[in-house]
Amino acid sequence: MISPIKVVIDTKGSDNGPSVFISGAALALKKLPDIAFVLVGDEEFIAEECSKLDMPMDRVEILDAKDEVTNFDKPGDAIFKKPNSSMLVALKALSERDDLFGMISAGNTGVLLAGGMRHLSKERRVRPCLSAVLPCQDGSFTCLVDTGATIDCTPEMLHHFALLGSEFMRDTYRIENPKVALLSNGAEASKGNALVKETFPILAEDERLCFIGNIEGNRALSGECDVLVCDGFAGNQVFKVTEGTATRIITDIVKYAKREGSNEVLALANHLMSVYDIGSLGGGNILGLKKPVIKARGNSGEKVITSISQMFLNIAQNKEIFDTAKNTI
Amino acid sequence: MISPIKVVIDTKGSDNGPSVFISGAALALKKLPDIAFVLVGDEEFIAEECSKLDMPMDRVEILDAKDEVTNFDKPGDAIFKKPNSSMLVALKALSERDDLFGMISAGNTGVLLAGGMRHLSKERRVRPCLSAVLPCQDGSFTCLVDTGATIDCTPEMLHHFALLGSEFMRDTYRIENPKVALLSNGAEASKGNALVKETFPILAEDERLCFIGNIEGNRALSGECDVLVCDGFAGNQVFKVTEGTATRIITDIVKYAKREGSNEVLALANHLMSVYDIGSLGGGNILGLKKPVIKARGNSGEKVITSISQMFLNIAQNKEIFDTAKNTI
Repeated sequence: MISPIKVVIDTKGSDNGPSVFISGAALALKKLPDIAFVLVGDEEFIAEECSKLDMPMDRVEILDAKDEVTNFDKPGDAIFKKPNSSMLVALKALSERDDLFGMISAGNTGVLLAGGMRHLSKERRVRPCLSAVLPCQDGSFTCLVDTGATIDCTPEMLHHFALLGSEFMRDTYRIENPKVALLSNGAEASKGNALVKETFPILAEDERLCFIGNIEGNRALSGECDVLVCDGFAGNQVFKVTEGTATRIITDIVKYAKREGSNEVLALANHLMSVYDIGSLGGGNILGLKKPVIKARGNSGEKVITSISQMFLNIAQNKEIFDTAKNTI
Repeated sequence: MISPIKVVIDTKGSDNGPSVFISGAALALKKLPDIAFVLVGDEEFIAEECSKLDMPMDRVEILDAKDEVTNFDKPGDAIFKKPNSSMLVALKALSERDDLFGMISAGNTGVLLAGGMRHLSKERRVRPCLSAVLPCQDGSFTCLVDTGATIDCTPEMLHHFALLGSEFMRDTYRIENPKVALLSNGAEASKGNALVKETFPILAEDERLCFIGNIEGNRALSGECDVLVCDGFAGNQVFKVTEGTATRIITDIVKYAKREGSNEVLALANHLMSVYDIGSLGGGNILGLKKPVIKARGNSGEKVITSISQMFLNIAQNKEIFDTAKNTI
C-alpha cells in the first residue's frame, strides 16, 4: 500500500461551516498514521485553523478555493459557473493528480454527482450512483443504490446501479456473486411501479447479475440481498425512514429508562445508539467514478472524517490485494 | 347510535384461509356487544365453523359467495369476471343495503379499490386511496395516504388524497384544520421527484388545504403533519420500512435481554412490542367511498377483526355526534 493514502477534503460543503472538517482532519490524523489530507477551501482560513489545532502539517496540504457550491445551485449550472468552488477544485485535483486517492465532500449531492461525471467518469455511458452500505439484521451488509443522487430514474439507470453495486460489493466486501434485488411494493414479479416493472426483466436477463427478484421495504435490510436497487427517491425514503424509526425507538427507550429508573435499560439504549448510529456510518460512496468520492451528510460532525478515512484505507488495502492478484495471474 | 353496528366481512381474502376471520368474528362478538356481522363466503363452510365456535347467531348473518378474488387477479378484470366472489358480493351488499355500516377485507387491494370505486364511489371524479393512521412520536397521529392502493399516481390523484386525508382527520380525529405535507427527499420546496414537484404548487394553491410543504422520510412520523401525502409506492415503503426497522430493533432487544439475563430489558421489549405492533393497528381505511371499507393485511390474525370493529364503533360514534351537530345547526 502506498503510504500515506492522500485524501482531498472539500471543507466548504458542511452545513456546520468549514471548521468542522478541518478539526475532523486533525482528529483523523492523530488516529490514523497512514492517512494524509489535502484541505480545499479558503487558504488563509484553513491555515489559521490548522495553526490553532496543532495539525501535523507534514501530512497536510492546502489548496485555495474561494468560491462555494450551495444547496441552491443546480448541477448543470454549477459545474460550469463555479470552477473555483472548493468542490470543483477538489474534483479537478483528484482527476489530475496521481498522488490523490479519493475525496470527501458534504456538499450538494447533485453537483457532486455531475462534477464527478465530468471529471472522473469511468465510462461515459454509465450513470454513477450514490450508494450506502447499511448493516443488516443477520450481520451482513447491503449496498443500497441509489440513495438520492438521481431522483427520477430510467430503467437503464437502475440497470447501471445494479451493475455498479455488484462490482462494489465484489471488490470491497469480497462477495463473489452479489445477490441483487429490486425494491418493490410486493415480492411477486408482477408488483411494482412502472419503473420497477420495466426494470425487472432487464435485470433478470443480464447474466452478469445474480438477480433474486423483488424485495419489500420491511425486508430491505434483512440481509437477503447484497445490493438493493431503487431510484434515488425511494432509496432516500428507505435510508431516512430507517434512521427516523431507529432514532425514535431509541429516544423512547431513554425516556422509559429514566421513568423506570432502570440502569440496565439505559445500558441497552447506549448499546443501540452505537449499533444504529446511521449518522456515523460515514458517507455514501459515489459508484461509477475512476476514484472513490464519498458524500458525507451535510450535518456530519468532525468524527465522520475519521470513519471515512478508515473506509479509504479499507478500499486501498482491498485494491492492493486485487492488483497483486491480477499481476500474479 | 344505531345498535348494533352491522359489518360485512369478506372471509376469503385472508392469506391464512377463511376460518381466521370467522373465529375473529366470534372473538369480536364476545368483546363488543354493539357489533354484528355479515359473513360472506362459502355458506356451508361458514355455518359449520360457526357451529363449532359457539357463535351468537342472533348477531350473525351469512351471505353465500362461492368464488374468490386472488392476489393474481387484475382489478379491471376481476370486478367484471368475478361477481360471485366473496369480495364483490360483500361490496355489492354494502352498497345496496342501508343496514350495513362498513366492510372488512384482507384481499387483493387493487380489486378492493376498483370494486369500491364501482359500487361505492362518493364522487366519480375523485380517486379513492388507502390510508393508514400511524402513531407519531409526539403522541399524535398521522394519516398516510396512499399506502399502496395506487402505485403509479398523477399529481391530480395526490391532490385528491390530500383532500380525502384532510376530511378523514377532520371527521374522525376532530382536527379542525389538518396540516398536510408532501413526502419528499428534502424539506425545501425545490426537492422531490417529478411527481412531487408537480404536486407541490397544486396543494399550495388549494385554500381548502392547510399545506405545510415537504417532509423527509426521517420526519414522516414526527407528528409535524396530520396528513402525509405520497404515491402508493412511496407510502408502501414508509409503512413497511417503519415496520421492518421496529421489528428488527425489538428482535435485537430480546436477544440482548436474554444474553444479559436482564428482566428489566425484557419488560421493555414487551412494552415496545405493544407500542410498535403495526400489525395490530387493524387496517387501512379506503377513503373516498360512501361507506367505510377497511383493508386488513393479508396475513392478519383473528384479533384484527376486534380492532377493526372498534374502529367502526369509533367512526359510527363520531358520525352520530356530527350528524347531531349538523341537525342542530
